[in-house]
Amino acid sequence: MNITIEETLTGIANQLRIDSIAATTAAGSGHPTSCCSAADLVAALFFGHMRFDPKDPRYANNDRFILSKGHAAPLLYAAWAELGLFPREHLNTLRELNSDLEGHPTPRLSFVDVATGSLGQGLSIGVGMALCARLDNLDYRTYVLMGDGECAEGSVWEAASLAGVNQLNNLVAIVDVNRLGQSQATAFGYDVDVYRRRFEAINWRTEVINGHDMEEILEVLGAAGLGRQPLAIIAKTQKGHGISFIEDKEGWHGKPLSKEEAARAIAELEPKAKSGVADPIPAPSELPLPKNEAPSAYPPISYKAGDLIATREAFGNALARIGEVDQRIVAMDGDTKNSTFSDKFYKKFPERFTECFIAEQNMVGVATGFSTRGKVPFASTFACFLSRAYDQIRMAGISMANLKLAGSHVGVSIGEDGTSQMALEDLAMMRAVEGSVVLYPSDAVSAEKLVEQMALHKGVAFLRTSRPKNPVIYSNDEPFPIGGAKIRRQSAGDKVTVVAAGVTLFEAAKAAETLATEGIGITVIDAYSVKPLARDVIKAAAQKTNNLVITVEDHYPEGGLGDAVAGELSADGIRVHKLAVMELPHSGKAEELLAKYGIDAAAIVKAVKSLI
Amino acid sequence: MNITIEETLTGIANQLRIDSIAATTAAGSGHPTSCCSAADLVAALFFGHMRFDPKDPRYANNDRFILSKGHAAPLLYAAWAELGLFPREHLNTLRELNSDLEGHPTPRLSFVDVATGSLGQGLSIGVGMALCARLDNLDYRTYVLMGDGECAEGSVWEAASLAGVNQLNNLVAIVDVNRLGQSQATAFGYDVDVYRRRFEAINWRTEVINGHDMEEILEVLGAAGLGRQPLAIIAKTQKGHGISFIEDKEGWHGKPLSKEEAARAIAELEPKAKSGVADPIPAPSELPLPKNEAPSAYPPISYKAGDLIATREAFGNALARIGEVDQRIVAMDGDTKNSTFSDKFYKKFPERFTECFIAEQNMVGVATGFSTRGKVPFASTFACFLSRAYDQIRMAGISMANLKLAGSHVGVSIGEDGTSQMALEDLAMMRAVEGSVVLYPSDAVSAEKLVEQMALHKGVAFLRTSRPKNPVIYSNDEPFPIGGAKIRRQSAGDKVTVVAAGVTLFEAAKAAETLATEGIGITVIDAYSVKPLARDVIKAAAQKTNNLVITVEDHYPEGGLGDAVAGELSADGIRVHKLAVMELPHSGKAEELLAKYGIDAAAIVKAVKSLI
Repeated sequence: MNITIEETLTGIANQLRIDSIAATTAAGSGHPTSCCSAADLVAALFFGHMRFDPKDPRYANNDRFILSKGHAAPLLYAAWAELGLFPREHLNTLRELNSDLEGHPTPRLSFVDVATGSLGQGLSIGVGMALCARLDNLDYRTYVLMGDGECAEGSVWEAASLAGVNQLNNLVAIVDVNRLGQSQATAFGYDVDVYRRRFEAINWRTEVINGHDMEEILEVLGAAGLGRQPLAIIAKTQKGHGISFIEDKEGWHGKPLSKEEAARAIAELEPKAKSGVADPIPAPSELPLPKNEAPSAYPPISYKAGDLIATREAFGNALARIGEVDQRIVAMDGDTKNSTFSDKFYKKFPERFTECFIAEQNMVGVATGFSTRGKVPFASTFACFLSRAYDQIRMAGISMANLKLAGSHVGVSIGEDGTSQMALEDLAMMRAVEGSVVLYPSDAVSAEKLVEQMALHKGVAFLRTSRPKNPVIYSNDEPFPIGGAKIRRQSAGDKVTVVAAGVTLFEAAKAAETLATEGIGITVIDAYSVKPLARDVIKAAAQKTNNLVITVEDHYPEGGLGDAVAGELSADGIRVHKLAVMELPHSGKAEELLAKYGIDAAAIVKAVKSLI
Repeated sequence: MNITIEETLTGIANQLRIDSIAATTAAGSGHPTSCCSAADLVAALFFGHMRFDPKDPRYANNDRFILSKGHAAPLLYAAWAELGLFPREHLNTLRELNSDLEGHPTPRLSFVDVATGSLGQGLSIGVGMALCARLDNLDYRTYVLMGDGECAEGSVWEAASLAGVNQLNNLVAIVDVNRLGQSQATAFGYDVDVYRRRFEAINWRTEVINGHDMEEILEVLGAAGLGRQPLAIIAKTQKGHGISFIEDKEGWHGKPLSKEEAARAIAELEPKAKSGVADPIPAPSELPLPKNEAPSAYPPISYKAGDLIATREAFGNALARIGEVDQRIVAMDGDTKNSTFSDKFYKKFPERFTECFIAEQNMVGVATGFSTRGKVPFASTFACFLSRAYDQIRMAGISMANLKLAGSHVGVSIGEDGTSQMALEDLAMMRAVEGSVVLYPSDAVSAEKLVEQMALHKGVAFLRTSRPKNPVIYSNDEPFPIGGAKIRRQSAGDKVTVVAAGVTLFEAAKAAETLATEGIGITVIDAYSVKPLARDVIKAAAQKTNNLVITVEDHYPEGGLGDAVAGELSADGIRVHKLAVMELPHSGKAEELLAKYGIDAAAIVKAVKSLI
């Protein structure tokens, strides 16, 4: 008696259902019904379609799989157990402190490229991976499994739009339309035509199928890579499929089955289940892989002291310069490349640049996708608009992604455009990303050197660049290590240590000059590394000025430079007085605004005098 | 000789173009070409279609207009000058420090409901206003003018989707398809059919027109309010239309014309321009307005000390309770209402609840829209997913909107779901919103009282609620003013002041018990108001404990409670030692995680002992 491949795969799907139910019941929490709806799709992908080395999940020519509906993690874990990567028993450690089979997938696992669990982010990552395949001349395909609920997230449509524009025929989106969200039915229920129309509107090929019919699934998967368009498979499914007393019922989201219910469900599924890989997994190609190695050195820079140049422009210069020797570097922007100066890189290396248009969430997701493929992506826009992508940045932190962000036009020093264009909360936002590095250069040399440091550092790093032109103050060979600070001015008898960064460093220098004429000495520190902060440098300086510190920043008072210094040093008895933008600012000239909001030289002079 | 209404309106459009060019040239910055593409649309809306009182822009029955493409601000200002709200000469104060004609519109102006300038947010606001019109039985319509570039933002499609689902036939979206973004052409250029398909896919009525043909514009505007669907007008236009040497040319985004260019452009436009209102503006209806007044008191609560209840559930109880007497309160959620407990409000007042599905950006925009109509909107989801809407929250701050946010499932105390579901940066994010209030209750009583305070406070306020059940510790009549703190425990001879909030307050109490058995006294403070912080209360307590403070928070160390206390008090010589989640956490049981990441009672005991 012959068993068809479809029968085998359906059997495996049921085994994955059993494993998902058992694991979540053992854990006492989780999303078994969300696993059941997608089990046939996952079985087809992993055991009947994708090309990969099951023994080496990180192999770069493997087809990529992103579980965008991350709450179905047990299903993914079950698939890899079934593939033999770890013993099936291990599945029952789900959600335990000492098991990396966490509640939602993270790259602590070899077979997970990015953390998921904040919905609607997977397709952006997939777009980044698909673009990278094209850049690297690799033929791996990228499969993104999404829930229907998460298709309410606009980020999905940002990603889908860019995939359509770039005609990414190496990208497959699969929507598991199980009709039921967490708290009620989704907006569109089983109206699968809405999903079809939405994808087709932006130039995708679509296929609408029964997501529990293995024949249909395999057939439409066969269309992957054909034609020029990305492929969207809209699969009508049932939440809890295969469990007669639960399937397609409301009230079962994110709920494990009781032991009794699990036993009943497993008893129903067991006769239809099958374990053991039927056919060998198709091998990935052996196309040559890109090197993706950091160069031994970057070309030198040659600014002249006093040259007037904005740090945002120096960022662009740096990208173009180091991109020359560092093939890992790619860049993307949100239609601001002529303001962030990422266009300097674009003009030189158009094939390594992705215009993401005005869609910052997707831009960050695309960058994270590139980072998973060994690239060093620099995503840039106005810093205030990075707030649009804060959830994506947060998830990049959880993914321990090698993501580089450059935000320009920070603070009131942008001037006339008004508050909506001023980043005044970006330091707070970026400092609070776990493991992040937050850099804030004042001149072109430090900006260039910090871009180098970002490229060499592994992890999420943010560069805060400014709009105004300011003079070059550092020599071309000055090093700017992450975690450092520069003492710009220090004398015996200094009364106060002023900690500044970016535009306020120039104000602090002016204040020091003014105060010097009155016989008052101050120490001035350039805290270009806001995180990690050079706590020892600042502490040592502060201790020489009677523990008195003034911080001055073009940012709101919460969570920025002042809080960083106070948060790190108050335990040592350092007294930190903060100068920051204390109210909602207004349009106006940059210098007017620095004065009005009390972060210019005059304000620093006044603050110093009030303390001594 | 009769002049047709179309000719008059085209004449006014050209006058608005002239005014926009003159103002931006006078300012030396701005976006004249983005004004020119939309001038005919704006002229038609303001002088030939919308029903409003030009002398009373805030009148609640007026049709609403949202300039989502906020960089075309001079066009909006010119329209209101033309309507006679202020002298035309005033337009030339554009972008000056002492003029409220800022670079992008803000509600400092009577005719602006919300700040715009971060693109793609206007339609969400419009959805909120349109839903509110339905709730209040008012017949004003809401018009949202968008650029084509901003349609790359996913938030636009979140809003459009919800408008389609709710069949908001009182909402009109107008897309000014001028083909050109800031740094290059948009993704779809003049392929207006893409926009048509995208709106139709989600059940909008669409009209594609020439955006410079007044006859076509007026005709399709006539369809506003007809049928059941929201109406999308896709208007093909030219950037810089009417300026022969600029129109439809790249390289002219965000650039004022030189004086000479402006003179030439104005000379071209002047013969076709017309000033003075042709027909009277159609009057708004006089339907009775809702009261939208706070009640004199809220119904009492009746918890028993020791009752185990999560603050998230108390939040739901509070909403349902105060919603009974406070008709201003509306609520919305992102398909988490059974977890945030906003479903308690939903079940009682379904007509005042908007299910926004999994689309947090739009949810916050919808809430802001409601707030502009006098409502007090509470938008809730997991706190970590509010990061998805950070740009919308930032803009709500700039709008000085009366927005209430409730974020549940904070910190590692959520347990097994894993890091992607844990809010560990929300305090940093929310503190850095200008003018915000950040509240963090520990028990049900404080949660209930703080919801009352939020409803009575005007401005952006955030409630941080927790997943675990904890005992009620406050009596039902305990007041919880914004900016306050509670001294939970204090004795002469206390060695250290421990400042906690939420779940860590219980850990601090346990630590105090343990330490007391060893003869070590500590002061314990419940800092339920993280912003504004009760600095005087904490300072006074700290001064009694040798200026020693330990903060303990279920949050990353950056920008949260510890930084707040250090940032406010280090200048006074208070020494703040922070206990916080110092690394990327893992799935596990709540109590295991509190221990592993050093924010439980044992960690507090250890920290206290290390300091004394």
